[in-house]
Amino acid sequence: MAMGGTRLRLLFLTLQLLLISSAKITLRFPSPAFRPESSSSVSIKSKLYETKYYTQILDHFTFTPQSYQTFQQRYLISYKHWGGAKKNAPIFVYTGNEGDIEWFTQNTGFMFENAPHFKALLVFIEHRFYGKSIPFGGNKDAAYANSSTLGYLSSTQALADYATLIIDLKKNLSAVDSPVVVFGGSYGGMLAAWFRLKYPHVAIGALASSAPILYFDNITSEYSFHSTVGNDFRSESENCYKVIKGSWQLIEDTAEQSGGLDTLRKSFRICKNYISAGALVSWLSTAFIYTAMTDYPTPSNFLNPLPAYPVKQMCKAIDDRKAGNNSNTFEKLYGAANVYYNSTGRATCFNLNDDSDPHGLDEWSWQACTEMILPIGGNNADSIFPPSEWDYAGRAQSCEDAFGVQPRPNWITTEFGGHNIQRVLKRFGSNIIFFNGLRDPWSGGGVLKDISKSLVAIVAKEGAHHVDLRFSTPEDPEWLKHARRREIKIIENWLSQYYHSSSS
Amino acid sequence: MAMGGTRLRLLFLTLQLLLISSAKITLRFPSPAFRPESSSSVSIKSKLYETKYYTQILDHFTFTPQSYQTFQQRYLISYKHWGGAKKNAPIFVYTGNEGDIEWFTQNTGFMFENAPHFKALLVFIEHRFYGKSIPFGGNKDAAYANSSTLGYLSSTQALADYATLIIDLKKNLSAVDSPVVVFGGSYGGMLAAWFRLKYPHVAIGALASSAPILYFDNITSEYSFHSTVGNDFRSESENCYKVIKGSWQLIEDTAEQSGGLDTLRKSFRICKNYISAGALVSWLSTAFIYTAMTDYPTPSNFLNPLPAYPVKQMCKAIDDRKAGNNSNTFEKLYGAANVYYNSTGRATCFNLNDDSDPHGLDEWSWQACTEMILPIGGNNADSIFPPSEWDYAGRAQSCEDAFGVQPRPNWITTEFGGHNIQRVLKRFGSNIIFFNGLRDPWSGGGVLKDISKSLVAIVAKEGAHHVDLRFSTPEDPEWLKHARRREIKIIENWLSQYYHSSSS
Repeated sequence: MAMGGTRLRLLFLTLQLLLISSAKITLRFPSPAFRPESSSSVSIKSKLYETKYYTQILDHFTFTPQSYQTFQQRYLISYKHWGGAKKNAPIFVYTGNEGDIEWFTQNTGFMFENAPHFKALLVFIEHRFYGKSIPFGGNKDAAYANSSTLGYLSSTQALADYATLIIDLKKNLSAVDSPVVVFGGSYGGMLAAWFRLKYPHVAIGALASSAPILYFDNITSEYSFHSTVGNDFRSESENCYKVIKGSWQLIEDTAEQSGGLDTLRKSFRICKNYISAGALVSWLSTAFIYTAMTDYPTPSNFLNPLPAYPVKQMCKAIDDRKAGNNSNTFEKLYGAANVYYNSTGRATCFNLNDDSDPHGLDEWSWQACTEMILPIGGNNADSIFPPSEWDYAGRAQSCEDAFGVQPRPNWITTEFGGHNIQRVLKRFGSNIIFFNGLRDPWSGGGVLKDISKSLVAIVAKEGAHHVDLRFSTPEDPEWLKHARRREIKIIENWLSQYYHSSSS
Repeated sequence: MAMGGTRLRLLFLTLQLLLISSAKITLRFPSPAFRPESSSSVSIKSKLYETKYYTQILDHFTFTPQSYQTFQQRYLISYKHWGGAKKNAPIFVYTGNEGDIEWFTQNTGFMFENAPHFKALLVFIEHRFYGKSIPFGGNKDAAYANSSTLGYLSSTQALADYATLIIDLKKNLSAVDSPVVVFGGSYGGMLAAWFRLKYPHVAIGALASSAPILYFDNITSEYSFHSTVGNDFRSESENCYKVIKGSWQLIEDTAEQSGGLDTLRKSFRICKNYISAGALVSWLSTAFIYTAMTDYPTPSNFLNPLPAYPVKQMCKAIDDRKAGNNSNTFEKLYGAANVYYNSTGRATCFNLNDDSDPHGLDEWSWQACTEMILPIGGNNADSIFPPSEWDYAGRAQSCEDAFGVQPRPNWITTEFGGHNIQRVLKRFGSNIIFFNGLRDPWSGGGVLKDISKSLVAIVAKEGAHHVDLRFSTPEDPEWLKHARRREIKIIENWLSQYYHSSSS
């Protein structure tokens, strides 16, 4: 069967491989994956949550007639382990990110596994414009039509949605004194951290996992993301790094030869419908980047099923085969790509034109064209990708072309800060955990140092993208167990402090 | 000459005198007044500031085509005492409230008088939709036309305006490391406090003077405002309180008698164009309420020129005349009203129909119909006004009638909090001074107790509405000097802490 449905399309960041092709690869924020064969004691097959809808207002910040329109916002709720309103038992809320909330919910094992211990109510709120939480009558065609409707898709509106929904839910449950802790990974982690900073009266604390809140303006080097990808592969072997680094020119050169595209098609088992050097480069880059991001210590299923330590597996595929001529190099790369694209071994060919989006992540492209301007995409000389610079003008132009919209590149730092965060928050704010795994390419934009006693950085050298939020497995390494134990301890402290100050 | 231009019209809060008439009085937030004959050493007649305009975005929180419209936002700036960007000298910003920024600027003597000591740059930013900061082409007719345009007048947009303008100004001055302290009184004080809470990366601290941030939802008793008015008069004499309290029924009864309105017209020197019992009650109530609010220890000019301790002067007018029949009572009340309406003694009659608005405060009525729902207007049995209840339904209906808009009564506490503020902010946030004078009817909605070491309440038992921000005079009492000295000390501490953490 032809495969390709799991290849990620243009989304989150633009990686321009200028020396090789004009193809652009934009990556989406990856999020924890559904693990149907989870080895955890918590089964996610059973009815773990109920689906509810909340009548949400379209625009919190203006009072035009349009702003009063409402839409149905989906949230999932699990009362199973809740200690109840009378005991002011806590409420754990996942601040949904850019996709179907069921997918995030089913993959945030950390909340399910700790609900019994905390006697917590679990709530997972879907982000507006994703999944089933579609304004303008629930009609995606209408909601995604153009900037007049998409304009209401923004992080600040989403945060206000969460505040409004949580406050109303607590009233309806007669649980106004139940403390709320918010959780999120990736963009959802950014939202969780910002939610605690902007709505301290709604959430007593936040676990923000792999949240690159410092990847805006020029706070973090544009090279950081791809440097980390390169370092991940280089840490496995120098040869692995060199083969990948050398491959781009080789592909380009081959493509330009007569019959070259055919050679490439055969080498990489590309389906007959479409091939170009740029598309192939994009397909391979995607595999390397997402594998680096989800370089988990146990088998996982992010967007594609992956073995434990998949970067190591890729490099093994590259290193195990003997060095030699170009087609040998392609065989090595094909072996590496197979780790990401073909874990079942059942693919007969790969479709470079596949555009399916099983998790409903597509509207991130709107967010990446308005406020989510993360300057990622430059490559320094050490990168496994060809050297390049972050191209803001290119992003702006493609946004103009796609949506007729101009980005507001400084808005996120205007609204949420980021510059000099250590100084700004040293004596302001409290109760946020910033988790980052240093093998995660996003980690360069994360908070990696404690800001104060209660604005805490947990850094796992061996960790990848929000690995802490995943379901536990018996094979989890000690460093991961340790990070989760610390998170639980800290949340326990927030809660006991809250109960203490309530009773006094 | 006929007087009346200084009578305040329906604005901020609805005071229903149910037993007497159906007249509604809505009050605006009062603000410090222009004192042309200030005895301060700082002359405000000279060119103390330059007028500038900033191209501001219409809607910070959405990305519709409409949101990208811009308008010219006015700000006033004084470099006179600034230590300069190279020294990271501080920037003091006034977060403008609901009126012409020149009026606030010329009356915030505290900032002018302390600029030399702090070597501070002074910036006064006008609130959108007021003064000369009018969206939709600067055209008030267009901007105030209906809810499609007025909808962009909101506190959250105003705060984002301030953040955007300040960040840009600092960049242009190469002063990104200059610390910003925000100041504001009344609604401007609410904005200053909220600005520090929401934009800690832009302002290192806030002086929020007479900011009733707790006068939302049911946090503060609806009776608090008018109770304080009554207590202010009662503190002068029991007779004064009783005469005012008894006057409403007397006016109503007189008006119903044949020739009664004529009696009232003569007693109160009302011009011949218009009189009704309701309008007269409104005219008198306004005088009592605003005199209580601006019961300053020195002569002042809020909206009307007033002597020092004007409540005492009013009660003197009431107490000095012998008790007797009804017309005697009216003479007493007229004497009291004269303190507020006729300090020059030159009025020949008072126009109950005067609708002029010299300070451009009118659009507060829109804010009071959307988010600024302060439940004020109820009177308990002890009030000098007849007993009544806060009437939310009445407010909502009048907003529907006036603008076709529905209030969002819970929005302010959703966005900014307020409930359990002591618990919520005990370990969150820092560097806010909440000043309140207890003779100010708004003080019941203020923060009157320290929340933490750096969220500090300064309470002046003898103080009225943001008296601390006014120009100093040689006659200022010791308690007022003391409050200002404390504020200066605290701001000095914020700054030295900032410089210390910058250099380390």
